[in-house]
Amino acid sequence: MRLTPGIEAHTHEYVRTGQIDSKFGLPIATGQAMAGVQQALTATNIRLVGLHCHIGSQIFDLEPFREAVRVMLQFAAEVRETTGWTIGELNLGGGLGIYYVPGDDPPSIEEFAAAVLGAVAETAAMLALPRPQITVEPGRSVAGPAGITLYTVGAVKELPGVRLYVMVDGGMNDNIRPALYRARYEAALANRMTEEPDAIVTVAGKCCESGDILIREVRLPRPFPGDILAVPATGAYNYTMSMNYNRLPRPAMVLVGDGRAEAIVVRESFADLIRNDRIPERLWK
Amino acid sequence: MRLTPGIEAHTHEYVRTGQIDSKFGLPIATGQAMAGVQQALTATNIRLVGLHCHIGSQIFDLEPFREAVRVMLQFAAEVRETTGWTIGELNLGGGLGIYYVPGDDPPSIEEFAAAVLGAVAETAAMLALPRPQITVEPGRSVAGPAGITLYTVGAVKELPGVRLYVMVDGGMNDNIRPALYRARYEAALANRMTEEPDAIVTVAGKCCESGDILIREVRLPRPFPGDILAVPATGAYNYTMSMNYNRLPRPAMVLVGDGRAEAIVVRESFADLIRNDRIPERLWK
Repeated sequence: MRLTPGIEAHTHEYVRTGQIDSKFGLPIATGQAMAGVQQALTATNIRLVGLHCHIGSQIFDLEPFREAVRVMLQFAAEVRETTGWTIGELNLGGGLGIYYVPGDDPPSIEEFAAAVLGAVAETAAMLALPRPQITVEPGRSVAGPAGITLYTVGAVKELPGVRLYVMVDGGMNDNIRPALYRARYEAALANRMTEEPDAIVTVAGKCCESGDILIREVRLPRPFPGDILAVPATGAYNYTMSMNYNRLPRPAMVLVGDGRAEAIVVRESFADLIRNDRIPERLWK
Repeated sequence: MRLTPGIEAHTHEYVRTGQIDSKFGLPIATGQAMAGVQQALTATNIRLVGLHCHIGSQIFDLEPFREAVRVMLQFAAEVRETTGWTIGELNLGGGLGIYYVPGDDPPSIEEFAAAVLGAVAETAAMLALPRPQITVEPGRSVAGPAGITLYTVGAVKELPGVRLYVMVDGGMNDNIRPALYRARYEAALANRMTEEPDAIVTVAGKCCESGDILIREVRLPRPFPGDILAVPATGAYNYTMSMNYNRLPRPAMVLVGDGRAEAIVVRESFADLIRNDRIPERLWK
């Protein structure tokens, strides 16, 4: 059963999920979580095994996770007192941040686990609750750093004294996070890794939107058409949120490891783009 | 040849395209547009027929369009003076706004055409230029009002004194404009059109993001699971920007007219979603 613990993690408004005014979960503060538990315990077709919460995304601070544990177990103790039901599993959702740009300082998996399990042990002991099984959903921290997007540089547009725009053969269609959350990324020229980064450039996508700027400012060797621009940390929320805006086919994904490179998603074709399109017969006339 | 006329229309930063610091076009102010024209006129493989600009999107005020005409024709006159080339076609791009919510007051197509053609006649006469052929790209104003999205209401979550959330079987996967531009929409319950709208509700999408709120506040009869929520003016930038986030298949599109309803895009299947996925053999072992 998913609850809203009333915790505000310091993260982008769009990926903050634990506050009371949320579309997600049953809030504890209003009594709706307790009512939900009671309803689940009364229902003959539901076996309540645990409680779930999710406090947000791309979180670097461990304290909100500890606080979530305390709030959830405190609630579990109240549930036991009220109904006799004992929590068997506590799912703390996701939220563990990853490194995108300098200044990002995510905790390690070990630090995250130690913080969470420490809070569980301490709080459970204090409340005389058995320690529940703990599950977490650290999807971004698994998939995110594993992905690198490769673009080919097209036009380079210099506005002297204003900005050096570098256009690539992708954009918000494969990475909407900069436009959606003002997310920031690093980049490198994969074919010129050893050259001095002597230019500050703006990487623009090819979609017909001013908002389709992948990176506002990044230091690179001055790019030329044909250069390969590598953007790391694009393994999470990129392909999954990709789209065919401007009828752009989605790119391939290649798994690289053990000395091999194999497609795990093949490049979309133009035939794919119109596969589900139909033209009613009367419009042919 | 696409130019940047240096005009700032009053619209969302992401859809403002005519200012100098833009990824689009060759700016007139810096001399780059003139250099581009001269290069095109010198190239043996290019026949320059006209000039293009695009000042932004979802614009209600006609004055920026008139100003674009003046700036572009003034430039065309300078080009004639410098090179002898005479403009044959002027493409003013898109930008004509449409009605989404109360307060939106777009000009009609007739008003838009009169404003643009009036400015062309006046400016061309003043500059002693022949009137160029005028082309425009009013995509949104053609396709936008033609589209209505139908959702089915799922869960209704009431936070007393805070908010009444109504969850629907779609969201940012079929309409990312609210999350991306804070775009606003109206809505109605299609199966209860004659009932008094006695509730203020927040329409939430089904994607795993707090930002997936389709409409922040709309007055409706209090919705119940199974109701059909109709959101008008979704014919432009909705299906085109749709995605498979959370592995949601994209919805069908149905053409309704002349007493008929025919699919023009059939609903995506789960088979479609994994059509291009591959699992390398070594991972099967």
